[in-house]
Amino acid sequence: MSVQLETAQKILLDLVSVMPKEQVVLQDCWRRILAETVIADMDFPPFDRSPLDGYAIIAEEVAGATPANPVTLRQIDYVPAGENPSKPISTGTACRIMTGAPLPPGATGVIRLEDTVSQEERVSILSGGGAEKNICLQGEEISQGEEVVAQGTIINTGVMGMLAALGKSRPYVFRKPRVALIATGSEILGIDCPLVPGKIRNSNSYMLSAQVAEAGAQAVLLGNVADNIDEISRFLETAADCDVFITTGGASVGDYDLIGEVYKKMGITLLFDRVSMKPGMPVLAGIRAGKLYIGLSGNPAAAAISFEQLVRPALMKMGGRKVWWRPQIRAVLASPFMKKTGAKRFVWARCWQTDANILVEPLHRQGNGMLKAAIRANALIVVPENSPPLSAGTEVEVILLADA
Amino acid sequence: MSVQLETAQKILLDLVSVMPKEQVVLQDCWRRILAETVIADMDFPPFDRSPLDGYAIIAEEVAGATPANPVTLRQIDYVPAGENPSKPISTGTACRIMTGAPLPPGATGVIRLEDTVSQEERVSILSGGGAEKNICLQGEEISQGEEVVAQGTIINTGVMGMLAALGKSRPYVFRKPRVALIATGSEILGIDCPLVPGKIRNSNSYMLSAQVAEAGAQAVLLGNVADNIDEISRFLETAADCDVFITTGGASVGDYDLIGEVYKKMGITLLFDRVSMKPGMPVLAGIRAGKLYIGLSGNPAAAAISFEQLVRPALMKMGGRKVWWRPQIRAVLASPFMKKTGAKRFVWARCWQTDANILVEPLHRQGNGMLKAAIRANALIVVPENSPPLSAGTEVEVILLADA
Repeated sequence: MSVQLETAQKILLDLVSVMPKEQVVLQDCWRRILAETVIADMDFPPFDRSPLDGYAIIAEEVAGATPANPVTLRQIDYVPAGENPSKPISTGTACRIMTGAPLPPGATGVIRLEDTVSQEERVSILSGGGAEKNICLQGEEISQGEEVVAQGTIINTGVMGMLAALGKSRPYVFRKPRVALIATGSEILGIDCPLVPGKIRNSNSYMLSAQVAEAGAQAVLLGNVADNIDEISRFLETAADCDVFITTGGASVGDYDLIGEVYKKMGITLLFDRVSMKPGMPVLAGIRAGKLYIGLSGNPAAAAISFEQLVRPALMKMGGRKVWWRPQIRAVLASPFMKKTGAKRFVWARCWQTDANILVEPLHRQGNGMLKAAIRANALIVVPENSPPLSAGTEVEVILLADA
Repeated sequence: MSVQLETAQKILLDLVSVMPKEQVVLQDCWRRILAETVIADMDFPPFDRSPLDGYAIIAEEVAGATPANPVTLRQIDYVPAGENPSKPISTGTACRIMTGAPLPPGATGVIRLEDTVSQEERVSILSGGGAEKNICLQGEEISQGEEVVAQGTIINTGVMGMLAALGKSRPYVFRKPRVALIATGSEILGIDCPLVPGKIRNSNSYMLSAQVAEAGAQAVLLGNVADNIDEISRFLETAADCDVFITTGGASVGDYDLIGEVYKKMGITLLFDRVSMKPGMPVLAGIRAGKLYIGLSGNPAAAAISFEQLVRPALMKMGGRKVWWRPQIRAVLASPFMKKTGAKRFVWARCWQTDANILVEPLHRQGNGMLKAAIRANALIVVPENSPPLSAGTEVEVILLADA
């Protein structure tokens, strides 16, 4: 079954569902996806507090104070951070207060230490304007009962701090999808093996492990296996706790292209085995017992693009994200792209901003190798189907890659 | 010592040096920084190979073949992937060849299987044009001796695949700087503690742990400690294997602001204790025996911005990166920023692209709290020193934050 790219994307996105939630210690939650909507069970700040070291006072009493005409008050208490005030402020009194300490009842402002002179139990206020601004009011940042962070939010720097402030020491996050990676091909060696004639090392599993991690999922590298239906099936049956099984190699037409046969033998329902795109046309997808099976090309260029376009969005959805697609912009070709395009094509490219506009340049050497182009690429040019060669200056659609 | 922001940045960048290198298994190297320049010790592909399943032939012999006028050859060999050809191709002969298999000597092209019909030891070529293009030439992607990836490169998807192809199973990467995080303040509780009056939880260490991770370094959370010189010193002496020690709290003027005293007691040379910026003016830096000590404000807004502007670039340099600064662009204010600015100011903001230009909007509630703004921010507006209030439509400098 050969399908259009958009059809293949929809088939996979419709089939996968969001992972179950799990509790993870906050320290390990950076960049995880929140699986609960966090409602504040408290005000924040939890009490009126002083944002600076100084004196809590009644603001209107000192408003006119100047160095030439200070207002002198009696110090009746002293509140370090972490302690609670014991006496209320009344006319003619002040309370020494530290940054972060709770304001005593009756106080309506704070004068910073630098604007005071103290002697024994007396304090003279030398500058009294704006004292009422020097209070952090209870609940001014968050009110109890307020929705603070929504399910599906990426836990960034700010969310980390917020969850800590609210005591969410083990928030619920979506479990990362586990993705088994298997390189098939009798010509493939493990990366620790010395090279022998006719063989190459397993670069695909490592490239894909980075793509899997970038999609917020967890790669499980199962190694490489020869072109043999029974062996490949055995590998695919081992990692029973994985959610997605990706093979590379054996995906196109030919008598050693075995993944279709493997699926048949294993009772995996084939969803499609060819997608209208370039590179990455040979790609199989199947489903069995809720697990997704993907057969990518053994060609790194094709495997990477098929993953980008088909597997990544599905993993993003499984991981509980709200946005499954990379940002896309329009840019101007800085150099021509000379090939005619039949099926929709993705071209590794480098894009940059000038004063006038955003330029993009296709990278060289992306034929069968592609790894070299992928090292430098920060974007993919999307060439629509049935396009003529594109001259420099043409405006094109560009997908921005973060991993560069 | 109060210094300008640019001076403080330079002081820290000049003092820190790049971390030593370490070998890490490739699987764990994604987003690490390469500490060696990788020179290819082989050609890639390592041999002329077939990019498809078909027949290796002499290209000019079959160039004119059509379905009506096929060229029939004798099949003399069969090379699966991972095997080596045993016989050279000569006039009138062909070799069945699989994707990824080495080309036999004498062959100058490959005809794909779909364009052939075979019967016993004979194969008829039905379409013979362009066969010479169906070869991946030895070294066409990489030549032996070529510099493939430079020291200081971030190991992205493409680099991962490339290192695997070259058998770099344990590349040298720069050790991540280890950053100890300590929250000081008698009002601070651990995040697992029930809240009691006058106390708040330690949000700063968690917020900073995410900032540290985003700067490619490793956070070591040491917990929280009361406002006590001896206790804080003891905490700072514990994590001897850390490279940078960051405290929050006790950094501004006042008798409970202890970090300056702690540095004195510990023999840490003070570099500065105040930086002209907002928020984040109270910030100390010191050095002792090659280790960096940073005292940030206890105010999350100030701590986050001081870290961004002062600590992050230093950690990026220590981690072996070539680029220490975030990308910066110009954008147009979508809503006014009403405050007058004395010292250079950083404002949490959200920026987005329209058809016409890039807009940016300051986020609300960034006073003392900031965490709420930081959750939504994807940018920081840089307001130059001594700026008047800025009206909507003003063009401003914007730092792009990735972590959003």
